[in-house]
This record gives sequence, structure tokens and C-alpha cells, in this order.
Amino acid sequence: MSHHYQSILASIRTEVLPLQHDGAVANYIPELMTVPPERFGMHLRTVDGHDFAVGDSDEPFSIQSISKVFALALVVSLVGEKIFKRVGVEPSGSSFNSLVQLEYERGIPRNPLINAGAMVVCDVLIGQLKRPKQELLAFVRQLAQNKRIGFNERVAASEKEFGFRNIALANFLKSFGNIQHDVSDVLDLYFHMCSIEMSCRDLATAFLLFANHGTRPGSTDAVLTKSQTKRLNAVMQTCGFYDEAGEFSFTVGLPGKSGVGGGIVALHPHRYAVATWSPRLNAKGNSVMGMKALELLTTKLGSSIF
Amino acid sequence: MSHHYQSILASIRTEVLPLQHDGAVANYIPELMTVPPERFGMHLRTVDGHDFAVGDSDEPFSIQSISKVFALALVVSLVGEKIFKRVGVEPSGSSFNSLVQLEYERGIPRNPLINAGAMVVCDVLIGQLKRPKQELLAFVRQLAQNKRIGFNERVAASEKEFGFRNIALANFLKSFGNIQHDVSDVLDLYFHMCSIEMSCRDLATAFLLFANHGTRPGSTDAVLTKSQTKRLNAVMQTCGFYDEAGEFSFTVGLPGKSGVGGGIVALHPHRYAVATWSPRLNAKGNSVMGMKALELLTTKLGSSIF
Amino acid sequence: MSHHYQSILASIRTEVLPLQHDGAVANYIPELMTVPPERFGMHLRTVDGHDFAVGDSDEPFSIQSISKVFALALVVSLVGEKIFKRVGVEPSGSSFNSLVQLEYERGIPRNPLINAGAMVVCDVLIGQLKRPKQELLAFVRQLAQNKRIGFNERVAASEKEFGFRNIALANFLKSFGNIQHDVSDVLDLYFHMCSIEMSCRDLATAFLLFANHGTRPGSTDAVLTKSQTKRLNAVMQTCGFYDEAGEFSFTVGLPGKSGVGGGIVALHPHRYAVATWSPRLNAKGNSVMGMKALELLTTKLGSSIF
Amino acid sequence: MSHHYQSILASIRTEVLPLQHDGAVANYIPELMTVPPERFGMHLRTVDGHDFAVGDSDEPFSIQSISKVFALALVVSLVGEKIFKRVGVEPSGSSFNSLVQLEYERGIPRNPLINAGAMVVCDVLIGQLKRPKQELLAFVRQLAQNKRIGFNERVAASEKEFGFRNIALANFLKSFGNIQHDVSDVLDLYFHMCSIEMSCRDLATAFLLFANHGTRPGSTDAVLTKSQTKRLNAVMQTCGFYDEAGEFSFTVGLPGKSGVGGGIVALHPHRYAVATWSPRLNAKGNSVMGMKALELLTTKLGSSIF
Repeated sequence: MSHHYQSILASIRTEVLPLQHDGAVANYIPELMTVPPERFGMHLRTVDGHDFAVGDSDEPFSIQSISKVFALALVVSLVGEKIFKRVGVEPSGSSFNSLVQLEYERGIPRNPLINAGAMVVCDVLIGQLKRPKQELLAFVRQLAQNKRIGFNERVAASEKEFGFRNIALANFLKSFGNIQHDVSDVLDLYFHMCSIEMSCRDLATAFLLFANHGTRPGSTDAVLTKSQTKRLNAVMQTCGFYDEAGEFSFTVGLPGKSGVGGGIVALHPHRYAVATWSPRLNAKGNSVMGMKALELLTTKLGSSIF
Repeated sequence: MSHHYQSILASIRTEVLPLQHDGAVANYIPELMTVPPERFGMHLRTVDGHDFAVGDSDEPFSIQSISKVFALALVVSLVGEKIFKRVGVEPSGSSFNSLVQLEYERGIPRNPLINAGAMVVCDVLIGQLKRPKQELLAFVRQLAQNKRIGFNERVAASEKEFGFRNIALANFLKSFGNIQHDVSDVLDLYFHMCSIEMSCRDLATAFLLFANHGTRPGSTDAVLTKSQTKRLNAVMQTCGFYDEAGEFSFTVGLPGKSGVGGGIVALHPHRYAVATWSPRLNAKGNSVMGMKALELLTTKLGSSIF
Repeated sequence: MSHHYQSILASIRTEVLPLQHDGAVANYIPELMTVPPERFGMHLRTVDGHDFAVGDSDEPFSIQSISKVFALALVVSLVGEKIFKRVGVEPSGSSFNSLVQLEYERGIPRNPLINAGAMVVCDVLIGQLKRPKQELLAFVRQLAQNKRIGFNERVAASEKEFGFRNIALANFLKSFGNIQHDVSDVLDLYFHMCSIEMSCRDLATAFLLFANHGTRPGSTDAVLTKSQTKRLNAVMQTCGFYDEAGEFSFTVGLPGKSGVGGGIVALHPHRYAVATWSPRLNAKGNSVMGMKALELLTTKLGSSIF
Repeated sequence: MSHHYQSILASIRTEVLPLQHDGAVANYIPELMTVPPERFGMHLRTVDGHDFAVGDSDEPFSIQSISKVFALALVVSLVGEKIFKRVGVEPSGSSFNSLVQLEYERGIPRNPLINAGAMVVCDVLIGQLKRPKQELLAFVRQLAQNKRIGFNERVAASEKEFGFRNIALANFLKSFGNIQHDVSDVLDLYFHMCSIEMSCRDLATAFLLFANHGTRPGSTDAVLTKSQTKRLNAVMQTCGFYDEAGEFSFTVGLPGKSGVGGGIVALHPHRYAVATWSPRLNAKGNSVMGMKALELLTTKLGSSIF
């Protein structure tokens, strides 16, 4: 079986290589544009502890929006499902709509994986934790079993300097009363969270939590209940891919989350978690090579949930 | 195993019975209000041909929006994936948003399971079929293996008389050029399609197509390719439950579709299809008892895809 | 003074002539495209009964949206200000916004000069009049003192055949309960109203009502009270020029109304009414030569209200 | 004539007094709530230099949005009409719509009298002036002929602390590139501008500029050209009263501007400027007693422009 997974990953790498010049690296903050655009890495880790990898799978990159899943997991582990009184669990349509929606629904973001929703999550974390940034980072390090994971302060600073739309969103939420702490504190946590750098190996390891009913493989302490884990997987399934949730559901058929840094992580409940990284993005903000790699994976494994 | 399923359904019935007075029967067209509100039925049919049922599972009811899945399956079997040039595959957010979206995206509905999207599907069917209403009905009858399935002309007439919002939507689509035939013909097909009456047994039988990679169990002729089937399941998963897609994904974790007539049908790929019926709806338009029954089913079976 | 006005109109004609190839004839319904595009006419009539005219000022053309002012005047004369419980008096922003607004404000159009608002006015007229089309036409004929004014049935039919967006709007209003009669009856009145053909002379004569505190010059019977007249002038001032109300307020500085048939009519309270006609429109749907002619008029007369 | 104006103002005061408990003081920032709610003042100044006043007409109050007119006048005097490439001149519909519109039209505010538009004006002022706050204040002082006019630093600080929606708006504009300087600098100028305190006498004196074709009565130096003045009056006429521009156009019929501090100022071109102040606001944010007082004034004078 090990050999099987490894050969599949090797053939996937060969098949996606011709796409390495397709798409464009994210340019909404200058710091993200410094990454070498032709990278490709993939790492699959099974629930029973086997690792399979190809390419630049050990190179840390900016996980960006993937971090929203970690923040959500942490907040659910701390306050439970009551977080969903302040943020919904439904997909949001396009980003144009998500702003209109926020106004129409008086400041309740549609789900915790759009920016506005993740900001509300950050606001709750600030109320629950003494040192929110450090404790969130510690949580991620533990899930990934890697103490070297850290923030990229240049990326966080770049977001703070150029992330006007996010600053606007946070202030809108505050105007509706759905942010309780200082906007600048919420944004500081949010921007740092997005700047976390991890490798494909780190991400696959960390996401096993969601493939293993809320408990890290090898651990006996549940981080999340089974029901909470199911909730998070459902949210990832319907809301994890910006304006391409339906497309990802079809092509890959697994719950997951992507980031504008070019990372994608997905999981097959009870079986494995898998992460890919390649910086060039399609028009909807998802990694071109990563989307293709995951499509090939579930096709070859016959492991789409559909 | 048979005994197992049957006892699960029996216990579900007992557990949902206390909810029989919760929620309200759909009232947006007068004809739907004539149904006895306390009904409850459930039918599960496995891919290998076993049937399990409780309650009013053989009583036909108005399937309403569930019919959109049949229309979509038929159109995909006729023209393939090119239908997705005229209608998207992404969730739409709230119904308020779906109108704004339609305007913002120049007449391309977000997906084929919202009203506007189903109208575009109807428009394509009219161009492909000589007698669209009869041929769509024949398609449904064959999938359900029941020749007595028919339209409810009173319900169709009631829609035509009171469905002003749908008439508005069809004319908007036409103004954007995304309806090619007469608006009145498209609406006639659409309203008839929604008026189809089927029982839980019929629906579970028909939806096995989607649980069985596009081929009716027992048949050798594929109606849909495996890829097309996966597409439809993915669309149902992310777009099948109005503004409750995320919630259904969590509580039930299966692809499915609901209708304001109180029906819900869902499927576990490679295993079974299951239909419930109970007319009282929650605030988001989905059957109260049906949602609970399906949640209990996947909990008891451990068969959520998450 | 007579000579003064006449020489001003003559010089205006000379000055606007170079613009005769600028802009494009309305093409949203085929029938409107048959008009000769280079026409220009202008007619000014003073409150004390003097007429001044240049160009094609006696040629009837499709008044289109200008008719909304007549319908509004008639409905106010019949039911008074209570019409403003069902339609607002505030500008609507862009046409994109006006749809969003209609949804957001549950079917109350922003003002009676946008299409949705005029449809509500038509609905009220149907409830007040035995033969709404004939009686509205009679009202217009009397104001213009011209019994030959009539509907253009081909234009009305063309609207009915191709005016999908208007049909959509009427059905939306009906879905909100803000249309009480049959949608088809409301649209029949609306489309006929828009198809009325009048000359510049007719329009200037008719609009003296609004320049003369609600009473036709020479008559002793008030059609509207002074307060009602002020209301209509204020509505024209803030809402009369689609998405160019502010621009018209600046360049011309008079209350008025334009139509996609190329007509514009404006009035200086207590002094005169003036109408222009030229079919080519600017990007916002207002006559290029007409806008310029009226700007020149108020500049030369120093008669902007600002 | 003097006696005439004075007796009219006296009778207006008597007539509006019964309304002194209607409406509510603005509460969106705490500092504004400290004002005594029953105040009423009114000051009318003619172009030829006569003053008429009743009530608390010499008491300074927070002019809030009225300041946008001063900023606009200053920017037009500095850069001319090219400001209108970055901000429109059309009404915006409701505040809900103005956000949607800003998104839909890619960051170009509809007009300079909504908050977003005034922020763009501030951004231009920052680029044109060495000490923007001081120079804007000097401009206002000169127009009002009163050197004691100043900012209220507590109000400005309160806005900075609680004006989340405005902070959001400024960052949105920046994200679209329609703010060129630091968001914090733009907001600092904007919040200070809104905190200016002036009396009715000050406002009536200052607004004579707009009633006197762009030149202060008694001065020979034009601040604005006649055309620029006409533009500003037209913008005030169509956009000066939040969501009540049409209503004000009808009841008062003069160009003007209101503020949530309870002030309203209006002008009759070539005749006079008039300011009222009373802190209780109606549901749309305009002073209850002020609106009534101005309606009575134009009714009694017969001086509505309609």
C-alpha cells in the first residue's frame, strides 16, 4: 500500500508539471510576490502514520487562509458550537456578495472561512486567551508536531500596510457590534495568523486531526468532539474554496481549504490528509497545480466521497 | 443487515414523532396548503435492491424543487457538461443574494438547483426535446420504475397564477439572453416539473441512479457517466438545501435535495438512497421531521461522508 | 421679448447642430430604431401663451418615460398624496441599485419616475378608472390641447414582445403585493402609456400645467393643488433624469423629464415650459442635442433656478 | 422688508415650538448626546447684508456633515471640476445602497456629500494644502467672518474612537485606490472637519457665498466661478439631505445641507441664506424643527424654487 501511494504521487507530479507556468502568483500584498513561482510539493499522511511525499514538500510557505481552519478548530475547542451564534455555517457566494450579505444580515458573516468570519473567530480567541498569537501558534505547532513553525513578520507587516479591504471589513464588523475587542488587536492576530509558514508535511500532519474524529493520531486526548469535527469538515466542504467550493467538491470531492499562498490541504475522513503547494493561482484564487494534483489523487484512488 | 436498517427506521420514526407539530406548511401557493400537515414517511433503498420503509412512505406528494435534480440529470444526459456554460456550479448564499448575483453576473445563475438555474435547464430541455413535459415525466417514471407518476395540474396552475417571483425571474433571465425560448413555455415546463407527485419509495428508487455511478441498479445502460454523476452529487452537496446547505452537510453529511412540499432525498454513494416526507417546514424551507430523520439515520449508521 | 426668445432658440439650433451625429438611438426595442436619427426640434411656450419653436418641433415622437409624469399627475389628481404610501419620492441611484433597492425595501419603488414606480402608478389608475388607457390619453390630450395625440400600437406591441425586464419588474412588484390588479393589465397600460406620440409643441403645452401651479393657463379649474404641483416638480427635479439627475440639475437647473425616444421637457415655474427632441442618446439614456439645447437655453436666459 | 422677514421668523418659531420633543438626538457617537435637546435657533441673512434671527441662533453647535460643503467648495476653488473624476454628482439612494454602489462602481462615490465622497475630497485637500486642517478652518472662518470658529477636539476624538463605519469606508476607498494619502490622515481631516462648531449666524453668513454666485457679498474676489457655484448648488439640491433629498426638495425647495448635529442650512440664489439648528432628528437624520421651520419659511415667502 505504501508503495502504491508513493507511485501515485510520483505520477501525479509528472502529470501536473506541464501546468507549472499557468496562473499567476498572488499580488494583493507585495510580500507574497517574492516567492519562486514554479515550486510544487505534495505530502500525504495516513491516519495510521505513513508518509508519502514528492517535490518541495518540506519547504515552508505562507499558509494564508488555511490558517482560518486552525483558528476555527481552536475556538471550537474552547467555546464549542456557540461560536456559530456570531458566524454562520453557510456558503457566501462571490466576494461581492459577501459584502452585500454582511450589510444585509447586520454584521453576521456567512461562515468562518471567509475573511469577515475569521475575524470574528479571532475576536473570540482574544477574549479566551491570554497571549492569543503565541497560543494559536502553539496549537498549530502541536497539531503539526513541529516546533519550528512560526509567523512571517514581514508578511504580517505587509498585510497591515496594504490590507485595506481587510481593515475595512474589521471596522464594518465592529460597527455592527460583532467585534468586541480593539479592531487593531483583532487585525494583528488575523494578519499574524495568515502569515504562518508551514510545509506540506506540516499541513498534512496537522489536518489528520480532522480525518481522525478530532483526536491527533497517537494521542488519547480529543481536541474536538466527533460532532465538532464533523461540523468543521462540513464547513470546509461547503465553504473552503472561495468561489470555487462547488468546483472543488466535484473535482476533488474532499473537505479542504486553500490559501492564496498556493497551499491546499484536504482530508479523507478516517484515511488520510494531504497537502499540496504551488504558488501560481487560477482566476478564482486557488493553486492551479494543487487543484489538478488533488483531482488526480482522488481519481486514481477512487476516493472522492461522491 | 435488512433487519438492521428496518429497526433503525422504526426507531427514527419514534424519535421524530414529537416534532410533528413543529414548523409550518409552505404557503406561497395556495394549492400546497391543502396537504395534511402531520404526515411522515421514510423509504430507504440499497444499491443491491433492498427496501426499508416506515410511515406514509407510499403516499405521493408534491416533490417541488427535488424535480430540479431530475431535470438536471436529463439535460446532462442530453448535452453533457456544456450546460455549465449557462449555469454555474457554486452555492448562491441567500435568496436575496441570488437576485443581486443574477444582476451582477449578467444573467448566469449560480447553480442549477436555484430557481433561476432550473429555468435555464428547462430552456435547454425545450430545445432538445419534442415534447418536453412528457419526456421529462417519462424519464422520471423510468428512474422510479413507476408509470403512475404524474403532474398535479392544479399545483402547476396554482404556480402559474401566483408564482410572480418565478415569472419575474424567468423574464430577467430572458432580458439577459439566457433564456432562448418563449418565457411562457419555459415557465410551463418549470411549473409542471415542480408539480410532479411521487412517494418516498419513488424518490429513493429514482435517486439510486446517483448512488450507483449513473446507471440504474439492474440496468446495463448508463444514463450518466461516472464523472457526470460525481458532478451532480457535488452540486447537490453544496447547493441542494437552499440557505441550509452547510447545515445539512453537517447534520446529515450526504448529497441530497429538498423541496417545499416537505420531501427530502439523499444518497450515500455506492450504498443507498433515502427519501423522507413531512410537510411542516423550518424557517429555511426544509422539512423539520425530514431533516431530523436523516440526521438520525447517518448518526445511527455512522454513514455521514465526514 | 418674443423676438428675444425666438432668436435664442434659433442660435441654440445652430450651436447644437454639430452634435447631430453624436450618441446612439435607443435600441432596447426594435420599433424605436426606425426613427430618423438626425431630427432636432424645440418648442418653448410661456405661461402667458406665447410660442417659440425651431426645427422639427411639430413632429410627433415616442415620449416614452415622459409619460410617467402624466400618469403621476393624473393619479395625484385622483387620489392625492396617498399614492406616496406605495411609491417613494427619493432618487434611486443607478438602475442596478434600483433593483437591489426594490428587494431590500420589500417592493416599494424609490420614486414614481423609475419604471417600477410608474407601474405602481398604473396599478392605482386601473383601480380608479373605468377605461384607464382611454382616460389617460384623454387627460394628456386635454393638457396638450390636441385631440390627435394617440398611442403607437406597434411600439406598445414591441414593448410587450421584448420588454422582458419590465415584465420581470411588474411581477416582482406583484410578488411583494404592491401591484393589486392583473400584471398583464398593468403592463398593458404601462406599455401603451410609454408609446404615446407627441410633438415638442404638445409637450411644452401640456407641461405648462406644472409651470402654472397646477392649472392650465387659460383655464379656471385646477387639475392639481399648488402643493401637489410643487411635489411633482420636486420629484422631477431629483428623479427625472435616470442616472443623470444631478448632472441635469447642474447643466439645466430646471425640473424636467426625459425619455429614451429622445424627448426632454422642462419647466421654469411661473414662466415657461420647453420641450426638445432629438433621437440620439448619450450613455446614460438622455438626448445629446436636447441636453445641450436646454443647457444653452438656461445659460442664455440666466434662468437656471440656481 | 426687514420687519417682514423678522416677523416671519418670529411666527415660525411659535409654530415649530410644539415639535420640540419630537425626534431624537443623534447617538452614533457619545459626544453628540451631551447637547441640550430642546434648543432651536434660526438665522437668515440676505445677499444685501441684512440679518434676521430668532432663538438660539448665536449658539455654536457641531455642524457635522454641513462641513462637507465647505470642503467641497475649497477643493473646487483649488482644483476645479476635475475633482468630479474621482467622485460623482448623482444622488445615491439609501445608505445601504451607497455601500453596494461603492463596490459595484469600483470605489467612485456617487457624490461629494455622502461620507465616502467627502473622504475623497479630504484626500485631495491633503494633496493641495500644507496644513489641511488649519487651512480648511481658515477658509470657513473667512466665509463666516468669524475667527472664533474652531474644531471640537472631543467630538473629533469621539468619532475617531467610535466611527467604525467611517473607518471602514475610508479603507474601502483606499483598497480601490481612490484615496492616495494615509487613511489615518484622511480620517483625521474628515473627523476634524465634521467637528467644526458654528452658530446659525455663522452658517447663514458663510453660505451667502453660494447665494451670491461664488463671491462673498462685500468682497470683490471670487472664491468660485458662477459655473462652479451652480454646480455646488445643484449637488446640494439633489444630494444634500441623506435619504430625504426628494422630500426636502418638495417641502423646502431650496438647495441646502443638513448635519446630524441638528443644523440645516439652505439658500435662495441671489436672495438669502438661512440656517436653523435644533438637535432632535427625524428617522432619516434631519432636524425635525429645522425641516418644519424651513418649510414654513418658503411657504410664507413663496420662495421655493418650484
